Amino acid sequence: MSMTRAVKAILSRYESDNPGTKGNLARMLMQGRLGGTGKMVILPVDQGFEHGPARSFAPNPPAYDPHYHYQLAIDAGLSAYAAPLGMLEAGADTFAGQIPTILKCNSSNSWAGAPNQAVTGTVDDALRLGCAAIGFTVYPGSDHFFDMLEEFRELSAEAKASGIASVLWSYPRGGDLKKEDELALDVGAYAAHMAALAGAHIIKVKLPSDHVAQKDAKKPYEGIDSKTQAARVRHVVQSCFQGRRIVVFSGGATKGADAVFQDARDIRDGGGNGSIIGRNTFQRPRDEALAMLDKIVKIYKGKE
Amino acid sequence: MSMTRAVKAILSRYESDNPGTKGNLARMLMQGRLGGTGKMVILPVDQGFEHGPARSFAPNPPAYDPHYHYQLAIDAGLSAYAAPLGMLEAGADTFAGQIPTILKCNSSNSWAGAPNQAVTGTVDDALRLGCAAIGFTVYPGSDHFFDMLEEFRELSAEAKASGIASVLWSYPRGGDLKKEDELALDVGAYAAHMAALAGAHIIKVKLPSDHVAQKDAKKPYEGIDSKTQAARVRHVVQSCFQGRRIVVFSGGATKGADAVFQDARDIRDGGGNGSIIGRNTFQRPRDEALAMLDKIVKIYKGKE
Amino acid sequence: MSMTRAVKAILSRYESDNPGTKGNLARMLMQGRLGGTGKMVILPVDQGFEHGPARSFAPNPPAYDPHYHYQLAIDAGLSAYAAPLGMLEAGADTFAGQIPTILKCNSSNSWAGAPNQAVTGTVDDALRLGCAAIGFTVYPGSDHFFDMLEEFRELSAEAKASGIASVLWSYPRGGDLKKEDELALDVGAYAAHMAALAGAHIIKVKLPSDHVAQKDAKKPYEGIDSKTQAARVRHVVQSCFQGRRIVVFSGGATKGADAVFQDARDIRDGGGNGSIIGRNTFQRPRDEALAMLDKIVKIYKGKE
Amino acid sequence: MSMTRAVKAILSRYESDNPGTKGNLARMLMQGRLGGTGKMVILPVDQGFEHGPARSFAPNPPAYDPHYHYQLAIDAGLSAYAAPLGMLEAGADTFAGQIPTILKCNSSNSWAGAPNQAVTGTVDDALRLGCAAIGFTVYPGSDHFFDMLEEFRELSAEAKASGIASVLWSYPRGGDLKKEDELALDVGAYAAHMAALAGAHIIKVKLPSDHVAQKDAKKPYEGIDSKTQAARVRHVVQSCFQGRRIVVFSGGATKGADAVFQDARDIRDGGGNGSIIGRNTFQRPRDEALAMLDKIVKIYKGKE
Amino acid sequence: MSMTRAVKAILSRYESDNPGTKGNLARMLMQGRLGGTGKMVILPVDQGFEHGPARSFAPNPPAYDPHYHYQLAIDAGLSAYAAPLGMLEAGADTFAGQIPTILKCNSSNSWAGAPNQAVTGTVDDALRLGCAAIGFTVYPGSDHFFDMLEEFRELSAEAKASGIASVLWSYPRGGDLKKEDELALDVGAYAAHMAALAGAHIIKVKLPSDHVAQKDAKKPYEGIDSKTQAARVRHVVQSCFQGRRIVVFSGGATKGADAVFQDARDIRDGGGNGSIIGRNTFQRPRDEALAMLDKIVKIYKGKE
Repeated sequence: MSMTRAVKAILSRYESDNPGTKGNLARMLMQGRLGGTGKMVILPVDQGFEHGPARSFAPNPPAYDPHYHYQLAIDAGLSAYAAPLGMLEAGADTFAGQIPTILKCNSSNSWAGAPNQAVTGTVDDALRLGCAAIGFTVYPGSDHFFDMLEEFRELSAEAKASGIASVLWSYPRGGDLKKEDELALDVGAYAAHMAALAGAHIIKVKLPSDHVAQKDAKKPYEGIDSKTQAARVRHVVQSCFQGRRIVVFSGGATKGADAVFQDARDIRDGGGNGSIIGRNTFQRPRDEALAMLDKIVKIYKGKE
Repeated sequence: MSMTRAVKAILSRYESDNPGTKGNLARMLMQGRLGGTGKMVILPVDQGFEHGPARSFAPNPPAYDPHYHYQLAIDAGLSAYAAPLGMLEAGADTFAGQIPTILKCNSSNSWAGAPNQAVTGTVDDALRLGCAAIGFTVYPGSDHFFDMLEEFRELSAEAKASGIASVLWSYPRGGDLKKEDELALDVGAYAAHMAALAGAHIIKVKLPSDHVAQKDAKKPYEGIDSKTQAARVRHVVQSCFQGRRIVVFSGGATKGADAVFQDARDIRDGGGNGSIIGRNTFQRPRDEALAMLDKIVKIYKGKE
Repeated sequence: MSMTRAVKAILSRYESDNPGTKGNLARMLMQGRLGGTGKMVILPVDQGFEHGPARSFAPNPPAYDPHYHYQLAIDAGLSAYAAPLGMLEAGADTFAGQIPTILKCNSSNSWAGAPNQAVTGTVDDALRLGCAAIGFTVYPGSDHFFDMLEEFRELSAEAKASGIASVLWSYPRGGDLKKEDELALDVGAYAAHMAALAGAHIIKVKLPSDHVAQKDAKKPYEGIDSKTQAARVRHVVQSCFQGRRIVVFSGGATKGADAVFQDARDIRDGGGNGSIIGRNTFQRPRDEALAMLDKIVKIYKGKE
Repeated sequence: MSMTRAVKAILSRYESDNPGTKGNLARMLMQGRLGGTGKMVILPVDQGFEHGPARSFAPNPPAYDPHYHYQLAIDAGLSAYAAPLGMLEAGADTFAGQIPTILKCNSSNSWAGAPNQAVTGTVDDALRLGCAAIGFTVYPGSDHFFDMLEEFRELSAEAKASGIASVLWSYPRGGDLKKEDELALDVGAYAAHMAALAGAHIIKVKLPSDHVAQKDAKKPYEGIDSKTQAARVRHVVQSCFQGRRIVVFSGGATKGADAVFQDARDIRDGGGNGSIIGRNTFQRPRDEALAMLDKIVKIYKGKE
Repeated sequence: MSMTRAVKAILSRYESDNPGTKGNLARMLMQGRLGGTGKMVILPVDQGFEHGPARSFAPNPPAYDPHYHYQLAIDAGLSAYAAPLGMLEAGADTFAGQIPTILKCNSSNSWAGAPNQAVTGTVDDALRLGCAAIGFTVYPGSDHFFDMLEEFRELSAEAKASGIASVLWSYPRGGDLKKEDELALDVGAYAAHMAALAGAHIIKVKLPSDHVAQKDAKKPYEGIDSKTQAARVRHVVQSCFQGRRIVVFSGGATKGADAVFQDARDIRDGGGNGSIIGRNTFQRPRDEALAMLDKIVKIYKGKE
């Protein structure tokens, strides 16, 4: 497929990046059934670290096998597949050249006493495994946020010099932030904005709720449309350099298919670039997952 | 424009610096409508980190776009534009060679539990983005001040070796320092002096109030003129090696235009080198901001 | 002995590893009386660090001598011998080429105030001592788990580049984890899974009990067979990338011979790759130990 | 396009390479109109170094523009585009993600006093420009051959570790080798074999003539079929590890279209992997070049 | 197989080497049908570099395939297989753990204008490919001998630190040395001795003739028994630290089977450690080669 105007426009906004990094962004944007549209659907499988194997894979046991996820992402025509080191190593040779991969370079787990993560992958790993990007999580609000940002800075600088893109998961958590405020619109937009400021190429945040948490933010939000989910997506996109950075939204906990489809429509209508959708797919039987992803792809293509 | 006597005099005081660093100081001092006067007006846009996107940009939505600020600084004929990594990357190519930039290398945020910042940019970033200087914040008084000073030492040493200048934001905060004493004259002068001692090329402090906070400082301040703001500026300049270092003052929270103009007159009259003025400009509509900056430039030129 | 189909199949699953690392995995898998079966029995002697010399060796004083353990592993026809730096150095020349060795690269001790270990060996040590693998312990749950994972990442990356395999002891401990939950099935499977995600080649865990500890894991475990020990082993193997990684189980505290044999049968029947068995052998008189290991080997060969 | 059996078979023969390198081989093998067939047509434009600009581009002046060649390779549906540093830099951003590129890392020129080349590009360049491979020339026979091989070893080792493939131009030249023997079958097969021994992923040689040059080689060649060009290609392929390495053939000096087509048919029939064809295309008007490349592609597809 | 007294005795003479290096010597000495005897037969396939593919492999075309040689060495029960980088890479994964390999790190070719070689492999290559040893050639007598020795020193020092053994081909050639004197007894013994002095673990020389070439050596050789080939072998062994270093002899050009067998008997009877035998085996049909190697193995076992 030849490069489309939509993808060229996106790439042109990464104006200080070298051609290697742009090429890797292009690999993801030109891959699969959404290739060329400027939209992306990414399959992330890092729940093994977050929740353990049974909570992640028992609902659909073939998913214990790392090859399952590579194949699912390929067969569904997705844009990229993201996973921690061991998961990628276990299939990187078999699937070399078939789907862009994102090495998730830090990871937490259910027992972590604090909102922080361990760095478990490096840019050298990404190069030898042929990854298009590194993935990294920061927890704005956490006492560890500064350390996490600095770890990202180091990996990100090395990645940029090596022509590797970066995807930053920016999930408010910890510190004085109340659990119920983590999804607040002002909080989510702030988290997305800081990911952009930190130099991430692709920003991953959660879909925000219609709620402003910070006292000082009440006033500026009076004039911001936040009634519909699409409007809130639009504000997050605006907060990422007025749309100069790719923003994708995570699907959150497993939920009904209709809710998933509505989310995708809202992301699309609000100008978001796509979805990172893990549990909602790999915890369903493969046929159902493929059907769901087929519909999501169609939504992003404007056909549903 | 050929180099002026005023700028040559300033450069001559940075006598241990290499020609590369002096050249970058000269780039800023010779830029824009104040070029050659020895005065500077710098546009800083790091409020996205500090306060989030909506509090920063909702009052003037075009400012969500990083290009807006580059263009504002250029059109207003300012001396330099300062911002964090992602903000500069998003426009560094489009505006290459049009305005000196300052990479703000550390950043805090509204949720930070302690007066500290994360290092989010490096000298390598500054070099690849073509920046004239790095910017860095320290919080004298904070329990993290020593760490911050040491982080600055590392970046600053690398910058000096690479011919890059440094701008040090020195903002008293934290530890036993009372909120109401942060702007005290003795405290501000002390903070400015430590920035000079730390080897910064350009020192950025807040305009001090007529108030001495430290008990032990009461006596020495008996003989120091602090009645007028211009007099207090003069004392800060004196505290920066008797005027051997460039000192610029920040505008603080958004306020009325007249107050902003009076500040500039006082800085000028007290021998300060200029203003770093962010929210007061980019949170106003562009026309108003340009008009305000036009007047400030004229003040520094002695025409208002 | 020529390479068997069983071993070739195991090696083929380490698809992103270089031939050097695969060769070292093969050295262990082709060694001794279980060579070629795809099963392993490893002798680990790191109790000196953990419990001190007398608790470790007084029950069988010849075991104070490092040569004793090399000879025991060789005479019993085991797959490999694992020990800390000094223990290996004390016999590495005498027994060069006779038994693959695993350099245990971190170690704790009875006086440690927190669940953590010191890094006491390196990949350079492993190379000069001719080791087939490095060994490393992490404590999922501990406040030090992130640091331990990052230490492993560094050693592991260097080992992979040098053609050395890695064995990761993953022992839940510390933090909010209750002592009685350390052996819970969900906890053990989670620990094993994280070792696989971290990129370990061989995963060493404890035999889990029939007990689910984490509240959020209760539901997914409803459909998982955990009645018999063999069934629980099967779940751990499944949790290690559906059997794509070698999993060996530790024998735990000294116990009766029959219990040891039953463990081996259950590991075998559940599809585990073998045992790491230390105290249960070297704390018995040599003749008894050899008889016990002889029987364990026969069990893994399907003969008992 | 999904990965084909033909390409999977080729990748499986690079058995000691990491997934990153295989992924870059796959990028070239899956690109363009021959994507998936196991055949390749590469456009090389290094004649500027070899012969100067006018000899290279005056026959078709639009070719002075580096963008011309990127676009030609893309429009013709080729597998990759190879050029020296400056040529790639001049278009790498515009065409990022549109065509795999090969950074030609050494270069000679018309004034060179000896058969040798200067190293003008590095693996870091290849990474920042997003290249799929490095290209390198050696001159077997030359007094500088050993030095060239050692330069290749250094670049090649770094490329392999970084997941970048290598293409080795192996052109007998210099030393005691007579000009008329450079194309001899034994000489060409020998040159190809040494490229394979040196660890190159893709071997580029010239089409050999029916002539054995080395006295000691007369006898072994008695039993080797060399009557037809296809038979000679087959012998070269055999000399590259019995077809375990990709071999492409260069088109040589500009010649008639029919001769070019016959060469392609012979390469195809002899089991070669494709053509590197430069002057014969870019020195013709664009329409003619596209028509010629269209026909060559069809030949490799077995349609002509 | 458990370590034999013969092999332990050999290893004990490498008294300053680390256990890693001794382990790799043991790997070769314990491998195959001669494992444990202290004798070795090594298959070297570097003739592709030396003579080109057709002269090397046309007599037995399956030998064009690198897998052929790995399999031949394994099936014949040999001690090790030696080849240049590309040849090893092409089979290192398939045959991982099945046969110790020796990475031939430098190589010449038929067109070389001077007796010298190019360094085409490194210790890092040897580690990632799982090699037991590096191989290297020096040409005593050549004007390049000092450079070659220094290249060996660098590789050898790195190999020793990494636990890798070294095999040094020491072939007098070049300078003032007459062609007919290259095989002289004094010349060969001298070359072997210098290899020992350079710190090689295994010394590979040619079988010497009954002829003393150096004028100054005539007298000392009066008392040395050189009538029989076995006696001459004994003198070479003596010249390698009185038998403290492993010495193997090369088979030279293809010749009749009986001559090959007689050579092996003489090496055995003279106390040599074995044969490096390439062309005489792989240039024969596989069945013949296996039969020949079977007989050679039996000779070294004292059975023929």
